Amino acid sequence: MPEVRFEKISPADFFYRNRDIAGFSSPARSLYMSIRELVENSLDAAEVGKITPSIIVELSCEGNSDEGVDIYRLKVEDNGIGVAPEHIPKAFATVFYGSKYGYKQSRGTFGLGGTMALLYGQITTNRPATVISSTGGKEIHRFVLMIDIVKNEPKVFEHEVIENKNRWRGTIVEFHLEADYSASKAKIIQYFAHTAMANPYASIMFIDPKGRLYYYPRVTTEVPEPPKEALPHPVGVDVETMSRLLATARDRSMLSFLMNNFQKVGEKTAREVLQLAEIPEDKNPRKLSHEEVTRLVDAIKRYGKFRAPDPSSLSPIGKNLLEVGIRNMLNPDFLYVVQRPPSSYSGYPFVVEVGLAYGGSIPVSDTIQLYRFANKIPLLYDERADVSWKVASERIDWSTYKVRFPAPIAIVTHICSPKIPYKTVGKEAIADRPEIERELVAALREAARALRLYLSKVEKREIAKRKLDIYARYLPLIAKYSAELADRKKPPSIDKLLKSLGIDEKMVEEAKKKALEKLQELYAE
Amino acid sequence: MPEVRFEKISPADFFYRNRDIAGFSSPARSLYMSIRELVENSLDAAEVGKITPSIIVELSCEGNSDEGVDIYRLKVEDNGIGVAPEHIPKAFATVFYGSKYGYKQSRGTFGLGGTMALLYGQITTNRPATVISSTGGKEIHRFVLMIDIVKNEPKVFEHEVIENKNRWRGTIVEFHLEADYSASKAKIIQYFAHTAMANPYASIMFIDPKGRLYYYPRVTTEVPEPPKEALPHPVGVDVETMSRLLATARDRSMLSFLMNNFQKVGEKTAREVLQLAEIPEDKNPRKLSHEEVTRLVDAIKRYGKFRAPDPSSLSPIGKNLLEVGIRNMLNPDFLYVVQRPPSSYSGYPFVVEVGLAYGGSIPVSDTIQLYRFANKIPLLYDERADVSWKVASERIDWSTYKVRFPAPIAIVTHICSPKIPYKTVGKEAIADRPEIERELVAALREAARALRLYLSKVEKREIAKRKLDIYARYLPLIAKYSAELADRKKPPSIDKLLKSLGIDEKMVEEAKKKALEKLQELYAE
Repeated sequence: MPEVRFEKISPADFFYRNRDIAGFSSPARSLYMSIRELVENSLDAAEVGKITPSIIVELSCEGNSDEGVDIYRLKVEDNGIGVAPEHIPKAFATVFYGSKYGYKQSRGTFGLGGTMALLYGQITTNRPATVISSTGGKEIHRFVLMIDIVKNEPKVFEHEVIENKNRWRGTIVEFHLEADYSASKAKIIQYFAHTAMANPYASIMFIDPKGRLYYYPRVTTEVPEPPKEALPHPVGVDVETMSRLLATARDRSMLSFLMNNFQKVGEKTAREVLQLAEIPEDKNPRKLSHEEVTRLVDAIKRYGKFRAPDPSSLSPIGKNLLEVGIRNMLNPDFLYVVQRPPSSYSGYPFVVEVGLAYGGSIPVSDTIQLYRFANKIPLLYDERADVSWKVASERIDWSTYKVRFPAPIAIVTHICSPKIPYKTVGKEAIADRPEIERELVAALREAARALRLYLSKVEKREIAKRKLDIYARYLPLIAKYSAELADRKKPPSIDKLLKSLGIDEKMVEEAKKKALEKLQELYAE
Repeated sequence: MPEVRFEKISPADFFYRNRDIAGFSSPARSLYMSIRELVENSLDAAEVGKITPSIIVELSCEGNSDEGVDIYRLKVEDNGIGVAPEHIPKAFATVFYGSKYGYKQSRGTFGLGGTMALLYGQITTNRPATVISSTGGKEIHRFVLMIDIVKNEPKVFEHEVIENKNRWRGTIVEFHLEADYSASKAKIIQYFAHTAMANPYASIMFIDPKGRLYYYPRVTTEVPEPPKEALPHPVGVDVETMSRLLATARDRSMLSFLMNNFQKVGEKTAREVLQLAEIPEDKNPRKLSHEEVTRLVDAIKRYGKFRAPDPSSLSPIGKNLLEVGIRNMLNPDFLYVVQRPPSSYSGYPFVVEVGLAYGGSIPVSDTIQLYRFANKIPLLYDERADVSWKVASERIDWSTYKVRFPAPIAIVTHICSPKIPYKTVGKEAIADRPEIERELVAALREAARALRLYLSKVEKREIAKRKLDIYARYLPLIAKYSAELADRKKPPSIDKLLKSLGIDEKMVEEAKKKALEKLQELYAE
């Protein structure tokens, strides 16, 4: 038998060997991913301090080639809360080290994205990255660093402390990477435009390698309340999470443990759950057996009477903003926006927002135009792998809503949650968790019913218009001929008759004009 | 400013918090994933020892519910090479610990899949898993274990050593998990059927929760040579890999380093590369500066004259086997199979095989039926995110190949490589690495040209047939009427005439029959 070698590798090494799973597959997509990860870190860094974000992204080409794959320099500057110097090296050069593992909504979820961008730059150019940051105090810290991939640790080459005379606050990240701007430009610009739409309180500036400026000024200075950390909702909390909560609990009894460590659990609920689990109310939380933990989690699953999770940890886009955004983007004839009530999966609350638009500048197509957002960031790749696509294309029978393809139909979905169940580390497609799928279906059905009503009206109007066209075309002729037959000089007025058919003046005028044009054509022949 | 907390988490904790990215999103898909991961480990464990794999998968329901989400017991048994006892706990209960990080083709790539299945079972049922294994020696080892998620370490509850009287060799993994068999049954059966197709030397048995047996016997006992470990191909090797190779090199000069550590690099090539990199041939490999490493990697990229990578580390399905498999599966009217010559990306060789099928039992559809395989395993989820889908639907303009949708067209793709660039940890979609995309496009174009030829012939035949139909319908009538007009009792023979039109007897008979039917219909009216 062959000898089998075993080894253990570090997370940095894992992602180095498998960078495709973090979205860094081609020079084009890697550039898009790098920009995305750093911009999203910047947005988070501003929002957490309730600062209106100002982000400047600068991309320049270091090589000679005019297009295609080349070495680029990427610099992202923000006015966020900054990173304390003792955390800078690890935050930017250690995989799975981050500030983002709390129970609140944020764009980054993995403590991975920024480091991954730097890692990609390092392996394609072998040059160190520069990170400059200040929390607004007396000092600005500048680090030049690389990632020790085997050890998953930072290698710091330079650390400079600069006097912060102007009390600047923020972070600047600058590094080199192999990229392909011409192949990713469209996606990058779309990313900035959509991000600006979902974050109207942010100012975003992008200077591209040709020196072109893309500027998205802030539309409002009102920053939403930063998402709060919240207690977990009991529904869906699994044994592992429960064991961790129990292990660190300071409560003396299970009754107070349940009431103090979960949202929406009052005394009555706690009592009933413990009864269902056959666990005494005064039991010490740290002394639960393996068996009892399983019973408790099982009882919570079966209980079924919890109130909906607290949405205060969520920051949805909001119906108004979504409506304005979609109108700007698509200028549709019909638009219906739904915000579903908060729901939860695996103990995480989430809110689904959906906009359904029809007509206007939406292109007529055999498929639905889908615009996806998650925690206010646009998702532009891997659309067909996303739960929104699944729901829009498989779960809704559009023919029952009077939509006949090809049709000018667009759907905008936004899912916000302290934890988006992404399918990929690259954060491009959301998994079809049954709870999320259910909410999307409900939202889309509601919107689709409104669309059906609209399309029925359009249909009726069209039928009426067709009738009117016929009336308008022939009634004047009939009137004229009748007058001639009756030897009267003036044909009788038919306006009243038309009105009695339920046709208003504007429609009459329009139809008349059309009919006249037709008549003129006829006479001209 | 708010205080920001930083923390570092273990890989096990990362995947616990983000199990969707490993494909464990719903109880249905998690069951499919668990079966997949364990079956693929089993196939690898047999093939590495050149053993004809015999795999038995047993799934039983522990709960009362007849369908839907419930607790299931999953047991996978193989006759592979077994795992040495000192490695069992870590191999099954540590993330990123595995035997699979060598440079050869295998199904598992992450040292993650099996552990992930057990992790999923643990967090949904809180029960330990049982692993029984023997390398065929005197002892069988039985472990009962769980994963310490925070520490990414195994927790062993029991370790039993059993006398191996019959010299049994193999591995049995058994654990409980929350699953939904009724919702995943179709995919699971499809997975087994396609796996059997691509691995005809394997015997696979699946006993489902209702006691139904799905048995795929081996069709051949010829096991392919186990994939060998090979030296990396220089094209695409990045700075990190180069630095690691240099650090552990035993060669005294750069010239011998290049010749001994890469495939397809002879003395001449090595000389030319070093000249291009401006590195002396006798330089000590362990004394290269940062700058020089970058120059070396850059020179390799620019060199452009390397021979194709060695395909001996690859194990493609093969044209014949692929053809037989596709015929069995789809029974098409047209089939063209292409095996591309080996190519490479990032230093990894790969081979693309493509089958293009048309007609037969392929359903007529607006889209192409796509069957994807990677290293002989079927990929059943996230089709639209895969490079094969991109190439088939976006890169090929089917209308230039005379394909008019809806059409009965199917494509089978197989990519084999020591390292498949999966987009997801769940190994369902392959990234669009430019090199792989290029090979797929080339293969599909070749097949599509053959299809165009076939469709042209069919088209010509159809036109000829339509003409024939007309001749066959009217010539007998004309003959009959002419005979009547000429007062002859028997119409003249028209067989010769028909033949002179280039129409053979079979076609004549067919057309006559059709024409007669038509005439009978006419007379009946």
